[in-house]
Amino acid sequence: MPSLLHIDSSPRPDSVTRRVTAEFAASWRAAHPDDAPYTYRDLAAAPVPHIDADQVAIMHRLESTGVRDLGVARDAAGTPEEKASWAVAWELIDEVLAADTVVLGVPMHNFSVPSTFKAWFDRLVIPPLVVDPGTGMGPLSGKKVVVITARGGAYGPGAPRHGFDFQEPHLRAAFGMVGFADDLTFLNSELTKSAHVPRLAGFKEMAAASLTAALDSARDLAGATGDRPGADR
Amino acid sequence: MPSLLHIDSSPRPDSVTRRVTAEFAASWRAAHPDDAPYTYRDLAAAPVPHIDADQVAIMHRLESTGVRDLGVARDAAGTPEEKASWAVAWELIDEVLAADTVVLGVPMHNFSVPSTFKAWFDRLVIPPLVVDPGTGMGPLSGKKVVVITARGGAYGPGAPRHGFDFQEPHLRAAFGMVGFADDLTFLNSELTKSAHVPRLAGFKEMAAASLTAALDSARDLAGATGDRPGADR
Repeated sequence: MPSLLHIDSSPRPDSVTRRVTAEFAASWRAAHPDDAPYTYRDLAAAPVPHIDADQVAIMHRLESTGVRDLGVARDAAGTPEEKASWAVAWELIDEVLAADTVVLGVPMHNFSVPSTFKAWFDRLVIPPLVVDPGTGMGPLSGKKVVVITARGGAYGPGAPRHGFDFQEPHLRAAFGMVGFADDLTFLNSELTKSAHVPRLAGFKEMAAASLTAALDSARDLAGATGDRPGADR
Repeated sequence: MPSLLHIDSSPRPDSVTRRVTAEFAASWRAAHPDDAPYTYRDLAAAPVPHIDADQVAIMHRLESTGVRDLGVARDAAGTPEEKASWAVAWELIDEVLAADTVVLGVPMHNFSVPSTFKAWFDRLVIPPLVVDPGTGMGPLSGKKVVVITARGGAYGPGAPRHGFDFQEPHLRAAFGMVGFADDLTFLNSELTKSAHVPRLAGFKEMAAASLTAALDSARDLAGATGDRPGADR
């Protein structure tokens, strides 16, 4: 059974990333059976607690003993404090393990990801999820991952600020470490600041075109192309 | 009067970054008058709330009206919710404005900064702190900034993972945007995972040398070189 995990991280309820992830999720749900599992997590409304010393201690033990089995790792917490901290991580890990498609809404904040998103990711990435150096495979390998970003300016190839994108290159590297980049697509809506910054007003059409392209790609990627099964609902 | 702001972000109480920032702070305090202002903030023990929709709304208004005056910006919150959110940011802004030296402890987490550090930075960077495009200067220009990092592996020039450092290049770019990179030094302790990962055990000596170099540089940068004024205290 196909399953979708949908995560937003923008602090703004009406944000560009939320609009595009919602379009993806709606198209995905329309294209799949009604009982296909769908999970939603809002990292701004309900932030994941930052990684703490207890989770780090457990992860160091896993690394020192070379544990790669997820079942063994799941039981690796010792003290009550470690068990509580580890449970925070496993709720996130189990959500990702259960999904075959993951759509992530990630606005650019200061050239990188929001702190809410980083908190989620740093809790999620435990040593046994790192791909096996021999096979290049790990428990998260092969999932379809779609990252929906929004940026105030333009960061694509040729843009003056291309070298200031520490969002997509960072996520490609970090996701690759855990096999989360085998089927990875970025849909970047750019120039969103043209909506409210007077000196960028001339870029409003480019911003609108960028958003339209992201919405179109989101529908395509969600599998709702052609005669969309859910178009009449 | 010289003043120091000392910020830690590692989740571990006994971390490498905490050890080096503490060495910096001790040397700085020994080299300066007893009443030189010293402020400490622990982002792991007391995390800064993530930026929220209220602060974003205020920042969008500042950008749309082009406000650059800090006094005007300080009074820019409207609703009670905005005032509460804006107060969170200004506590951090005032701390940085008041310091002429800032030492930041920032371990590498998944090739980038900890979520606690990103939460602090995303609250701090408001539009009037961005440097004036004409002069290249802003309210934070000229401060001495020392970033103390720790990395599990090696990310320096020539290392296989050099291209995976999304910490120092990102912070250099983001700090530069707000004039926080005029006098910026990184002290990176590398290969810290050699302490607990068996296959990296051969790098323990390199890790120790890297930490020693960071501690030595921290003392030098803090102004406690030669006959340290505080050496006998």
